[in-house]
Amino acid sequence: MNEFELIRRYFRFAALPGGDLALGVGDDCALFNLPPGEQLAVTTDTFVSGVHFVADGDAFLIGRRALRANLSDIAAMGATPLGFQLAIALPEFNEQWLERFSAGLADDALRFACPLSGGDTTRGPLTITVTLLGAVRAGEALCRNGAREGDLVYVTGTLGDSSGGLYCLQQQGVADGYLSERYWLPEPRLAVGSALRGLASAALDISDGLVQDLGHIAQASGLNAVIECNALPLSSQLIAAVGEEQARRWALSGGEDYELCFTVPPERRATVEQALADLGVGVTAIGRMTGKGTGVVRCVDGMGNPVLIERGGYDHFA
Amino acid sequence: MNEFELIRRYFRFAALPGGDLALGVGDDCALFNLPPGEQLAVTTDTFVSGVHFVADGDAFLIGRRALRANLSDIAAMGATPLGFQLAIALPEFNEQWLERFSAGLADDALRFACPLSGGDTTRGPLTITVTLLGAVRAGEALCRNGAREGDLVYVTGTLGDSSGGLYCLQQQGVADGYLSERYWLPEPRLAVGSALRGLASAALDISDGLVQDLGHIAQASGLNAVIECNALPLSSQLIAAVGEEQARRWALSGGEDYELCFTVPPERRATVEQALADLGVGVTAIGRMTGKGTGVVRCVDGMGNPVLIERGGYDHFA
Repeated sequence: MNEFELIRRYFRFAALPGGDLALGVGDDCALFNLPPGEQLAVTTDTFVSGVHFVADGDAFLIGRRALRANLSDIAAMGATPLGFQLAIALPEFNEQWLERFSAGLADDALRFACPLSGGDTTRGPLTITVTLLGAVRAGEALCRNGAREGDLVYVTGTLGDSSGGLYCLQQQGVADGYLSERYWLPEPRLAVGSALRGLASAALDISDGLVQDLGHIAQASGLNAVIECNALPLSSQLIAAVGEEQARRWALSGGEDYELCFTVPPERRATVEQALADLGVGVTAIGRMTGKGTGVVRCVDGMGNPVLIERGGYDHFA
Repeated sequence: MNEFELIRRYFRFAALPGGDLALGVGDDCALFNLPPGEQLAVTTDTFVSGVHFVADGDAFLIGRRALRANLSDIAAMGATPLGFQLAIALPEFNEQWLERFSAGLADDALRFACPLSGGDTTRGPLTITVTLLGAVRAGEALCRNGAREGDLVYVTGTLGDSSGGLYCLQQQGVADGYLSERYWLPEPRLAVGSALRGLASAALDISDGLVQDLGHIAQASGLNAVIECNALPLSSQLIAAVGEEQARRWALSGGEDYELCFTVPPERRATVEQALADLGVGVTAIGRMTGKGTGVVRCVDGMGNPVLIERGGYDHFA
């Protein structure tokens, strides 16, 4: 089987244009129509075997996780996905692996109405890079630098589950529980992101850990921030698996939850909570943006006493 | 130095939005404005150390080559570059390497008015994936499937030089001659691609070798094709280095020349040659599209006698 046959056999689900995809796989470029009045949003994430996922992970999940991590960035801008480019380096031709990988990716491409528009298949150490293309109404994208002093800080869903899932996988090698699903299949909050356009003052998705990522919003906005530790949304499954203290630690600095963190001016609080209530996604107010600063994030307990946090977040080059 | 500092130090040239780039590096997504009436063109190419370039290659050239290969795909659609996403996996933090890499990339980003809009930096075996975004007037993109029986086949520049350059590098380890420059720094034919909109019936860039790539046009158009071997444009430097016979072989099946191959209806011949004459890029008619077929490409000599060609083109999984 050569490269072209491989693409035809395993990435056939990519071939058909439709919706905004005017020309799909098979030419020098794919072509998209951008809806009138919209800007293009683009993001890229790479997943390296042995660094971002275990080498013997289920190929049915690996591609979906890469796609969802990128969709999460699109959600965090308030954008809607148009399609994605896939660059995959494969160490060898492995039919079974490719079938699982392709089946998982095709499932999610359909689920999120996000067709595979092209990419590159090469031989090399297993590496998956997804570049996600989306559209967002011009001027309405949710950026990081719009937070103001006094804005409330919200997060979607529960935090720390992904770290808990990875821990359970590493300890027990089991991949079928709630936590491991939260690790492998994060839920991109596309509907929340869209609903927040015009309401949230800043937003991002939590990929490096809450403290580090909220620090990005604070820094970009020239502020500091404070997190109320007892308000952190924790799943009962995570608490049951590792206890509340460890759960809170991972909620603060575990990476790859891919939940949204966003800021809301206090006067819009009711409007935002009403708008999100219909979407069936839990959102929790966990803190507040504080006066002018350089992105320092402090944690306090329910009484306002400082809580020490470990240096948070994953860093490839630390 | 952590990941964020690394990006700030070495990819600072990416930071400033301008032109169609509305929001650059530093948020969840980059944002682009697409000129009215234009479609988005997108393409992705991966370069793996040890597969696509020598591991000890000059970092000043490696990034430029990856960028140019992608720009060549944009040129082949008749599109104009908007910007690019860079995903790079690095085995270690190497300051000198990163400085060279970044300097080369910044040079070419400026040269081709193609800003770095975002990407991902991870630790892993050295792998560079570029996703290039471009814009092309809606409905005017140069596709592969528009060739008709009797159309003339053209190529830009000279062919086989890249293979010759790689050969010289491997044999002599020298990197400063004409041929090695042709290998490292292919010239994306953006002006030619733009000029061909509305004139060429099909186009692509030659990355897998002329025979294989012309076969793609023929197959997509439901035709066959014939190449007149004596018409192939060969550089005097290539002939001097390896002789005419080897030069012709590489012109037919050596990869990575990144010249354009395009087809032109005979009645537009004069118009096309006139339009391209002003651009200072050599173009040569090398063959013709023949009757209905499945993409078979034959070679003939000046008298129309068949010339045997080796199975051509590079294939990662053959």
